[in-house]
Amino acid sequence: MSFINVPAGSDFPLENLPYGVFSTQQNSHKRIGVAIGEEIFDLSVVKHLFNGPHLKDHQDVFEESSLNAFMGLPRAAWHEARQTLQKLLSKDEPTLRDEHALREKAFVKQSEAIMHLPAEIGDYTDFYSSIQHATNVGIMFRGKDNALLPNWKWLPVGYHGRASSVVISGTPIRRPHGQTNPTDAAVPTFGPSKLMDFELEMAFFVGGPPTKLGEPIPIDKTDDHVFGMVLMNDWSARDIQKWEYVPLGPFLGKSFGTTISPWIVTMDALRPFMDPDPLPYLKHSDPYTLDINLEVSIKPEGEKDHTVCKTNFKNIYWTLKQQLAHHTVNGCNVRPGDLMGSGTVSGPEPTSYGSMLELSWKGANPVPVGDQQRKFLADNDEVNLKGYCEKGGVRIGFGECRGKLHPALTHA
Amino acid sequence: MSFINVPAGSDFPLENLPYGVFSTQQNSHKRIGVAIGEEIFDLSVVKHLFNGPHLKDHQDVFEESSLNAFMGLPRAAWHEARQTLQKLLSKDEPTLRDEHALREKAFVKQSEAIMHLPAEIGDYTDFYSSIQHATNVGIMFRGKDNALLPNWKWLPVGYHGRASSVVISGTPIRRPHGQTNPTDAAVPTFGPSKLMDFELEMAFFVGGPPTKLGEPIPIDKTDDHVFGMVLMNDWSARDIQKWEYVPLGPFLGKSFGTTISPWIVTMDALRPFMDPDPLPYLKHSDPYTLDINLEVSIKPEGEKDHTVCKTNFKNIYWTLKQQLAHHTVNGCNVRPGDLMGSGTVSGPEPTSYGSMLELSWKGANPVPVGDQQRKFLADNDEVNLKGYCEKGGVRIGFGECRGKLHPALTHA
Repeated sequence: MSFINVPAGSDFPLENLPYGVFSTQQNSHKRIGVAIGEEIFDLSVVKHLFNGPHLKDHQDVFEESSLNAFMGLPRAAWHEARQTLQKLLSKDEPTLRDEHALREKAFVKQSEAIMHLPAEIGDYTDFYSSIQHATNVGIMFRGKDNALLPNWKWLPVGYHGRASSVVISGTPIRRPHGQTNPTDAAVPTFGPSKLMDFELEMAFFVGGPPTKLGEPIPIDKTDDHVFGMVLMNDWSARDIQKWEYVPLGPFLGKSFGTTISPWIVTMDALRPFMDPDPLPYLKHSDPYTLDINLEVSIKPEGEKDHTVCKTNFKNIYWTLKQQLAHHTVNGCNVRPGDLMGSGTVSGPEPTSYGSMLELSWKGANPVPVGDQQRKFLADNDEVNLKGYCEKGGVRIGFGECRGKLHPALTHA
Repeated sequence: MSFINVPAGSDFPLENLPYGVFSTQQNSHKRIGVAIGEEIFDLSVVKHLFNGPHLKDHQDVFEESSLNAFMGLPRAAWHEARQTLQKLLSKDEPTLRDEHALREKAFVKQSEAIMHLPAEIGDYTDFYSSIQHATNVGIMFRGKDNALLPNWKWLPVGYHGRASSVVISGTPIRRPHGQTNPTDAAVPTFGPSKLMDFELEMAFFVGGPPTKLGEPIPIDKTDDHVFGMVLMNDWSARDIQKWEYVPLGPFLGKSFGTTISPWIVTMDALRPFMDPDPLPYLKHSDPYTLDINLEVSIKPEGEKDHTVCKTNFKNIYWTLKQQLAHHTVNGCNVRPGDLMGSGTVSGPEPTSYGSMLELSWKGANPVPVGDQQRKFLADNDEVNLKGYCEKGGVRIGFGECRGKLHPALTHA
């Protein structure tokens, strides 16, 4: 228990302690904080309290305006930070609890904070690791017999994404212009996308010292390079994507914006939710199968959030470890702050599909959203992703990953 | 004419003045320099001489360890820097010519410098803009009738590449391990790539202030965001690429290394070589068609460079302007230091093809390399790209873009 109040159902109990970067109206300097209940613990104020052997010479990482330097320390430093934080925030520890001046300075209400990207993202990679999503998309575009391509079960298919357009929860997304050719006409069309979609994903941030070009990360060392996870909405313009993606993959159908949740939940917080009994189709009994409940809601203009999808991260076929080992097996180097998306998370039930493309089955089955219906997203729809683990009364949550779709520019 | 000696045939006359980042054994601090003849003009030593209206308040950009800050200034500042440099280096200008102490400090021999990446590359995009290359690859993989895909002539096809593994000329490249399935067998194979290739490309660096997410760059403003060009070798493992690339595009077949030349030749230096009469297939008479002679050589272990390809950048169908306008039309933001590759440059003649895949036609026609032959690259082959413009006795060159292919790791 913490001396900081954690309301029932909060995403951020003492067992979680996710990291983020925030500023306030009073202090526009970006700084590193940890979420606890409805507060943020400002680490820039208490960096001198990180006195263990792995951090005492690196306290400056908590004065940075991004998490890259802290994430770049070895994993032992992340463990030590977590132990220190759990001690400092415990109800039995007087260091902050009873020091009112320090305590006053060190805590900020989440409701008064402005959240920023938690790291400078060097490279952003997106995988395609949900077998149900890959199968659904395959059936729609190639028919049932060729749904899953021959390579899919042999390697975690992935592609490089655009890092510059990854934005923090709450950032508006503008409906993009682009070329489309929905009817395979002789001349394609130019204009705002008509098939706007979300993709429910999770993503992990790479940690540990940067690796060297030419040196793969073996699968049994991947733990040293997975810092923590966030929710991710990989916004997609399906009509732009369809026309452009052969043969080199998604490009402008994705690069207009990708929203992540602001709090990085560490693997240490998630470890109790790693399933020792993964679904039978998994190739090895890797305890990295994560039991994370996921939900997507759509909030039409002037309405409330309506849930359109409920699924679970354990539907992901390729684990984070497999993704990272594969990504680096050719010698590709990774750097702290690199972001790796899971791909859309879809489960076996039609209500557990992680995109409108699948939920409406390419528009054939409109999806109820309150009193309205949707085939794809409408202007001013706000999409929110939520995720949490729960076990033995402990809830580890990810907060929100929210973005509102603004109408297209009137010119382009 | 400069008071610095520029040997005949040098890539770096007073008309060129490309920017790079270098250090020396005596001074390991990375700093910005300009190539002139066989010297480097160290801008960190003379930043106080940039006194024009656009640079006098930004002299600090020349003390940075990368070009991002300078590239991030508006285009007028790049013009002014060029004018200042041409004046300072002119044989009629005493400021440096006659100040021996300053001159001593401000010039370093290129042969004594260690070159570094000229910028921190936020995102790296690779286009596919040579019609001959796309056609060649199409014929080999899909047959003559479907060689060029329906979207190719409508938009500059491109994909996101891996920024972390872009390296400077001279950096060794290790033959990557990976999955391949050359015979479409039931079970793929794991091991070192057997089909190592180069790709002759050029790339441009984005400049100007970062653009805002959601705001495209119209084609008539693209000039403000194209800083300069380099040579690029987009190393490719053809067998890994073939097995992995459907449906999301190239990934590990490319991300083990991409080599660029160290000197960024500015668009101001290249403007005299922009062809006002582009090849007839070009959609508009854009003066951005660049007449740049390009060559690839292979140097087997213990041998000299043997030329295997001669071509020209004007074979590129989509101009840099079109690439950048297309890239941002969906609102994707760009940042100074972003790198945009042209795609392999192939001309109409079989000797003007820009990759071994095409030169050997998938291995059917081995290519002579001195006394040896190559279908693809062999271990310890060193590949070098060269490029230069020439007109009215002025030669604007790009220097070298060199990399040696090291054998695969013995474990992976």
